[in-house]
Amino acid sequence: MDGQMLKPMDAEQLREYGHQMVDFVADYYKTIESFPVLSQVQPGYLRELVPTNPPTHPESLQDVLDDVKAKILQGVTHWQSPGYFAYFPCNSSTAGFLGEMLSAGINIVGFSWMSCPAATELEVIVLDWLAKLLNLPDSFLSIGNGGGVIQGTASEAVLVALLAARDKKLKKIGKDSMRKLVVYSSDQTHSSVQKACQIAGIHPENFRILKTDSSTEYALSPEVVLNAILKDVASGLVPLFLCATVGTTSSTAIDPLLALGKIAKSNRIWLHVDAAYAGSACICPEYRHYINGVEEADSFNMNAHKWLLTNFDCSALWIKDRNALIQSLSTYPEYLRNKASEANVVVDYKDWQIPLGRRFRSLKLWMVLRLYGQEGLQSYIRNHIALAKQFEELVIQDSRFEMVTPRRFSLVCFRLLPRSTDENQADKLNRALLDAVNLAGTVFISHTVLSGKYVLRLAVGAPLTEERHVIAAWKVLQEKATALLEGNVAQEPNGHAQLSNGVVEVDGALDNGVTTEQHGHVDDLPIKSK
Amino acid sequence: MDGQMLKPMDAEQLREYGHQMVDFVADYYKTIESFPVLSQVQPGYLRELVPTNPPTHPESLQDVLDDVKAKILQGVTHWQSPGYFAYFPCNSSTAGFLGEMLSAGINIVGFSWMSCPAATELEVIVLDWLAKLLNLPDSFLSIGNGGGVIQGTASEAVLVALLAARDKKLKKIGKDSMRKLVVYSSDQTHSSVQKACQIAGIHPENFRILKTDSSTEYALSPEVVLNAILKDVASGLVPLFLCATVGTTSSTAIDPLLALGKIAKSNRIWLHVDAAYAGSACICPEYRHYINGVEEADSFNMNAHKWLLTNFDCSALWIKDRNALIQSLSTYPEYLRNKASEANVVVDYKDWQIPLGRRFRSLKLWMVLRLYGQEGLQSYIRNHIALAKQFEELVIQDSRFEMVTPRRFSLVCFRLLPRSTDENQADKLNRALLDAVNLAGTVFISHTVLSGKYVLRLAVGAPLTEERHVIAAWKVLQEKATALLEGNVAQEPNGHAQLSNGVVEVDGALDNGVTTEQHGHVDDLPIKSK
Repeated sequence: MDGQMLKPMDAEQLREYGHQMVDFVADYYKTIESFPVLSQVQPGYLRELVPTNPPTHPESLQDVLDDVKAKILQGVTHWQSPGYFAYFPCNSSTAGFLGEMLSAGINIVGFSWMSCPAATELEVIVLDWLAKLLNLPDSFLSIGNGGGVIQGTASEAVLVALLAARDKKLKKIGKDSMRKLVVYSSDQTHSSVQKACQIAGIHPENFRILKTDSSTEYALSPEVVLNAILKDVASGLVPLFLCATVGTTSSTAIDPLLALGKIAKSNRIWLHVDAAYAGSACICPEYRHYINGVEEADSFNMNAHKWLLTNFDCSALWIKDRNALIQSLSTYPEYLRNKASEANVVVDYKDWQIPLGRRFRSLKLWMVLRLYGQEGLQSYIRNHIALAKQFEELVIQDSRFEMVTPRRFSLVCFRLLPRSTDENQADKLNRALLDAVNLAGTVFISHTVLSGKYVLRLAVGAPLTEERHVIAAWKVLQEKATALLEGNVAQEPNGHAQLSNGVVEVDGALDNGVTTEQHGHVDDLPIKSK
Repeated sequence: MDGQMLKPMDAEQLREYGHQMVDFVADYYKTIESFPVLSQVQPGYLRELVPTNPPTHPESLQDVLDDVKAKILQGVTHWQSPGYFAYFPCNSSTAGFLGEMLSAGINIVGFSWMSCPAATELEVIVLDWLAKLLNLPDSFLSIGNGGGVIQGTASEAVLVALLAARDKKLKKIGKDSMRKLVVYSSDQTHSSVQKACQIAGIHPENFRILKTDSSTEYALSPEVVLNAILKDVASGLVPLFLCATVGTTSSTAIDPLLALGKIAKSNRIWLHVDAAYAGSACICPEYRHYINGVEEADSFNMNAHKWLLTNFDCSALWIKDRNALIQSLSTYPEYLRNKASEANVVVDYKDWQIPLGRRFRSLKLWMVLRLYGQEGLQSYIRNHIALAKQFEELVIQDSRFEMVTPRRFSLVCFRLLPRSTDENQADKLNRALLDAVNLAGTVFISHTVLSGKYVLRLAVGAPLTEERHVIAAWKVLQEKATALLEGNVAQEPNGHAQLSNGVVEVDGALDNGVTTEQHGHVDDLPIKSK
């Protein structure tokens, strides 16, 4: 490239380089099992490998791709690896990838209808399609007062729902009443709800984290919610917003939507349903009952980028009263004024979200729905749930382990039992098992804590995961468990053992079987975030 | 694809389909000049063309691509067309496109360091690189207490800066003081600041929109700011946040950073600098002086996706006190806990932004900086500014037009002069000219209002724009101006004329020359947003 007359968008260069990149990505997927699923690099690794300053002169694509191979990929945690079982999945697919390519290729900014009519209209249509797959009530469709919108993440979805609820309520009770507004969630609700409250200025003392336990399988109890509401009302506070979850992050608990909806309605509370992960399963008729009661909700959210093959980001939010959202989030500066908006005959999605600009994300969801069809997507979900069930059976068959909560979708919550009944010992054992398994490189699982117990989470959901990967994951877990149990674990509570990601565990519980694969100490780290 | 056993991520299918999509995108750019720049479809057009329900069975890629050609592209406003001069540009480039492909291919979620170390570390490094290109003070770099982060848009950047400022202040003066916090901006500040205030719960009466006029070329006057602050302090209010803009949306006005910074500092106000558009120009030494004084700011933002060849979205935010951001936005649920975060040796970007999840956006910025280099990017910016200067000279040479504000970067603000001094007449004339020009199909320009005058905006900045396109844009403007001036415009103030995008203008000022290209009336529109 000639620095004196840059031609950054030459169609033939895009073609040539684009083909190279397609091969690079396809080859990545062909070799993806050769990488440790969880990156094993040390903090600050990349700074040692790249220049301190940007280049003055243009470099070649080959140089960059060589660097991706030599420097970047070792620092990637491979979410698309078939051995990825951590957190929740974040699916990539050929259709989703193609949709991203097309969106990046056209590269429009769809803030208003006029700025790219197809982007807005396809989004309206495709969100209606997805609502129909989920059998959502018509009140969430665009034909009435509702409608769907693609947010980046479930965090943004719950934030905009909260803002709509907040401003609708303040309009009634006066804008000086902010201090009185109360938000309800459970101790299993995603942290994004607390963050949304912080952002929206809900007073910290007015965010209720209601307790759950194993008696309801970690679901919110309607009685607990109602009592909290009544107490707040008696104190002169104003109940505003309740977040119910279908498929909590820790253990896929299901809050009872129907009962919570009736409480919300009679107390004029906005009910938001977070089905970020489990929503995808509800396109299968046999799982649809988990969102029964959604007709009582004011807003409903699921992440197509989690488990519905739509590359990140694509979080679908439906709302019954779109005017509440628009009134809370709309701005209309002169430089964006146009006749279509003024005639009030179009959707301007800038008023449904935090940012002004937005990508053409409906393309990828549209391509996923078309290239895979309802049947393909259902079979995909069912396959993962069957694999999780198979893993669950393996856990049950091994008396050294226990299932901690019932498996509903594709997440299995389990733990290794300690030799004593010492819960502290149990936690250490499972922490050590998690680290040992993740260091082995073939799988990546994560953890949570339920009722004070440290619990391992294995979520089936990567697009390449097959039965053999689930079996292999179980084998690694068994092997590492055996090593830990036989290795006289936690006999050296003050021993230093170094763990994955280069961080030294001071109060470690690891034996030699784990530490053999470790890296050196971390010195002089250039980056400190807190 | 077999619906019974979906294999959504087969490397060879991705390769085959990916190559098809590369050719599709390359062909799009080869033929981009054949499309009207501003889409001419009617609201609701797409609903007539696509099925009401999603497909049950998988469809072929060819079917989808055929539909993109036949149904989607007519509804696209072509931001990458060389005839695109509206709003501000939103650049696509081969490097940016390749970065998006790679990011979508790897498809990770980089909420914490551990979830993909390379994503976090490359972002830290590349934001340092870009800061060096902009010659930002070291206090914004990651080596000290500052650092950079990629936000989706400038709206999110100003929102997180405001939240950091708000919570830092409330920590000092007490969380019950929300009602007292005051935010300052000008009547030229981007609407995202007002929206950020709405979201953050700043009391509507405490958002100051300070007046500017042509005497300062629409820049904020330090005296006006200081007076407003003193008045608020005298009323017992607490000045919190000032947004200064380098390159306002309407006319690229430059607020005086140095003077405003001193006022902000002495009044303990957070100064945020919004250089969303003009920041890119500051990589050229000859334009760097426009951000002199940035050393006084607490946060600085520019959009690499606007004018620095990085596909949307990529908004770079630097902050001096990253802890303020983190303390405002961090959450740390059990299921995300990990040793690297706990050891406090890594950046977890989830705590620097609204969403939890995030894409690997640094890849595209890295590829842009490497494939084009500092020199290539500077030449790109300079070329656009030279083209804008050329357009400015054409405007000046035609006595029927006037320049409304001085041109600084690549935006020209001008208008057609009316035959009388009637400003109402002038507005009608320029509205009609805008519509006529945008209907012609070869260019898309936009407008603003300055000191009550309707003004046309032509922003050079699309990656394919060459001298011939700027000349052609001027020719269309001249032709349509001639037709309007000769056509006895606005003699029929109550005549109905139908405008672009299918919306009927009731109080129109158009003549026959404009209405000949119109479409039919809009009936029974399925979508209503407000």
